[in-house]
Amino acid sequence: MKQEKIPYKIYLNESEMPKAWYNLRADMKKKPAPLLNPATHKPMTADELAGVFCEELIKQELDNTTPYFEIPKEIRDFYKMYRPSPLVRAYCLEEKLGTPAKIYYKFEGNNTSGSHKLNSAIAQAYYAKKQGLKGVTTETGAGQWGTALSMACSYFNLDCKVYMVKCSYEQKPFRREVMRTYGASVTPSPSTETEVGKKILAEHPGTTGSLGCAISEAVEKAVTSDGYRYVLGSVLNQVLLHQSVIGLETKAALDKYGIKPDMIIGCAGGGSNLGGLIAPFMGEKLRGEADYRIIAVEPASCPSLTRGVYAYDFCDTGMVCPLAKMYTLGSDFIPSANHAGGLRYHGMSSTLSELYNQGLIEATSVKQTDVFEAAEYFARVEGILPAPESSHAIRVAIDEALKCKEISEEKTIVFGLTGTGYFDMVAYEKFHDGEMSDYIPTDEELAIYRAKLPKID
Amino acid sequence: MKQEKIPYKIYLNESEMPKAWYNLRADMKKKPAPLLNPATHKPMTADELAGVFCEELIKQELDNTTPYFEIPKEIRDFYKMYRPSPLVRAYCLEEKLGTPAKIYYKFEGNNTSGSHKLNSAIAQAYYAKKQGLKGVTTETGAGQWGTALSMACSYFNLDCKVYMVKCSYEQKPFRREVMRTYGASVTPSPSTETEVGKKILAEHPGTTGSLGCAISEAVEKAVTSDGYRYVLGSVLNQVLLHQSVIGLETKAALDKYGIKPDMIIGCAGGGSNLGGLIAPFMGEKLRGEADYRIIAVEPASCPSLTRGVYAYDFCDTGMVCPLAKMYTLGSDFIPSANHAGGLRYHGMSSTLSELYNQGLIEATSVKQTDVFEAAEYFARVEGILPAPESSHAIRVAIDEALKCKEISEEKTIVFGLTGTGYFDMVAYEKFHDGEMSDYIPTDEELAIYRAKLPKID
Repeated sequence: MKQEKIPYKIYLNESEMPKAWYNLRADMKKKPAPLLNPATHKPMTADELAGVFCEELIKQELDNTTPYFEIPKEIRDFYKMYRPSPLVRAYCLEEKLGTPAKIYYKFEGNNTSGSHKLNSAIAQAYYAKKQGLKGVTTETGAGQWGTALSMACSYFNLDCKVYMVKCSYEQKPFRREVMRTYGASVTPSPSTETEVGKKILAEHPGTTGSLGCAISEAVEKAVTSDGYRYVLGSVLNQVLLHQSVIGLETKAALDKYGIKPDMIIGCAGGGSNLGGLIAPFMGEKLRGEADYRIIAVEPASCPSLTRGVYAYDFCDTGMVCPLAKMYTLGSDFIPSANHAGGLRYHGMSSTLSELYNQGLIEATSVKQTDVFEAAEYFARVEGILPAPESSHAIRVAIDEALKCKEISEEKTIVFGLTGTGYFDMVAYEKFHDGEMSDYIPTDEELAIYRAKLPKID
Repeated sequence: MKQEKIPYKIYLNESEMPKAWYNLRADMKKKPAPLLNPATHKPMTADELAGVFCEELIKQELDNTTPYFEIPKEIRDFYKMYRPSPLVRAYCLEEKLGTPAKIYYKFEGNNTSGSHKLNSAIAQAYYAKKQGLKGVTTETGAGQWGTALSMACSYFNLDCKVYMVKCSYEQKPFRREVMRTYGASVTPSPSTETEVGKKILAEHPGTTGSLGCAISEAVEKAVTSDGYRYVLGSVLNQVLLHQSVIGLETKAALDKYGIKPDMIIGCAGGGSNLGGLIAPFMGEKLRGEADYRIIAVEPASCPSLTRGVYAYDFCDTGMVCPLAKMYTLGSDFIPSANHAGGLRYHGMSSTLSELYNQGLIEATSVKQTDVFEAAEYFARVEGILPAPESSHAIRVAIDEALKCKEISEEKTIVFGLTGTGYFDMVAYEKFHDGEMSDYIPTDEELAIYRAKLPKID
């Protein structure tokens, strides 16, 4: 039987690693909506973005037609330190579930940032260095992105200034310490270092911060500091472009063994992982060459795709960023305590939003305790303790595999295991102690934030 | 140039993974000294050990002549979930150091236990299950071994009872929580669950525990509970046997590219990693087929090889275990605060001790701040945040590479990177804040403990 030859872990050779990123937008007939200038409501130009982002990254951000961008050699060399990541055949999980389904997961957690975030961090740091900048600023919630960027900046000897959501800063001192090991400076947000931070602190004394607020501070710091630009770990087109390395490797590994997946599952916060994982598969789908079910999984506590609206909205609380058209819950929406910090964003990548709107992606939401049940099950069976974010995909992959069992169907499931949960043990503890909340926002609550959306013609 | 073809990471194929463990002792002319019964001072028999250890493991422990033990299929299948581990060519480190040396490291940290400990844990759990036991007991200091054993027991559905040194239990709640995720019960030691624990608590109220004390409790629990045995993560011959998988993979990967190392460097606490890493190389050395420099690196705060004596000593504080002949500082010796918890053991594997005594291994000790300097340097250059234990080997590998630079010699260095430091950020924080101690015991202090060694004819 052919299947028996498939190893537990499929590793590509170095020579098989992608040499170019794939730009999904090039194959979209209807393109994602452009970023708008919040003052004029006109599409943002490269010039307008130049104060915030690096030049080369702006080109990537605005380019909806070029299908491939060559990965510079310096970045490919860095990738070789932790990539290719394994595509794992979940033999143990299949056996334990007693399912006829074939389950594969692309594991992005085998690097010190603990997630896929490093794929874009190193690219963004490279272009910043190439432009001769002194450093970059960013925000981090759960801490993976901040860690990844710290590593990337350390590699290229760039200054790295991270605004970390205050409650995370206090609850995750170890994440902070990892960033410090890589030489980054980490400031709890909101801080008194920025005007927007001071304003927020004056209006909400004692606030523990939010991602939207940290973004505002990081952007302000970048545009007011000489030789600095702002970088972001998700949502943007450029990030999805860099993250396409995940999907390209996955597809190459599957092709090597003649495997065609039936469905591809990924967690979705801002969309960096899902957008990267599905890229080449969605490309085939858009070109009519193949069909796949593609499933975005989001937390029921922050359901932007499943319960949001498709509209222009602010990307940040301080409203200093361009407006993006996306599925959004409103930029003021703060989800209830949810331990998957990476999925707490009110909006969603414009590209994924447009694909979802066209019906090319399905979306589903899952409750927090169901997610941790799947996480613990997976840890015990497959040996990897997953990040809470990744565990959203695990939950749905398990559910789909069980459906296959029920109807005796031998489907091939691929999901993205974006990272490890080693810095999330407080969440696991809450789960073990039965102290985890499954709060889901009511329709009335969501309506309040929806009413505050900016009015764009 | 041949060297250019060597990838950043050498992965063996599944079919190239070792199918048998290599028993170094079979090739030793002078064998390691046997374990002695603490009451009679006669060599321990299999029968005497049967109440403490699993039967199959006792056979492995006492067998000094069989060169290879087949790895059971169930264990090889588990290995496939996280092995083969990569042999990494440290291109970035070489470049940064500007050394002509070629540096390779065998990285054992890509699994949830975070270290090589899983290699033996799964073997010991397998034999316990095969014997029809209900569960196993053990101790853990830094927490890697306890985590590894929890994972292994969860896989085979065995009960796992871990005594964790109290200060670690309190300082490392996340390690504890990982074990809990895998269903293990974790008790801070000394506890009131055992007679020896109660005795120690009565004599030293408020003690924060030690590894030797936790061993005593775990052994007592095993021998007084029906269907339980005790398992240990280092020091013993059986552990070195299982860990030979590290060295066998390393040698196979090097052979694939025709690389012959000049020196092999590993950290040494009880000897599990070093003994495993060097096994096949030492075999060649013992059989006169090749020569290698082999360097054991220990902390200056706990220098059993470099400043201990070669003598019979107790393995634990409660003196319930057999006596082992080894380089030891005395079983009462408690090293000063040292963040490499895995290297705080007073003794050393009998096998490694005998090899060291025969002059086949070199040993060196390094100061804690020097170790963390190397750790941070390595993290920034190679992208992996190393465990404090592993960083002892990094320190010496860097020093040797710099010597090569000085004298323009193109040596090939292989070192063991046993694990990651994600649960050791408190130590990194102390280092960053300049609060790390470099205390080294005085000759007078060491003499006190040496005087207490048992007198064996």
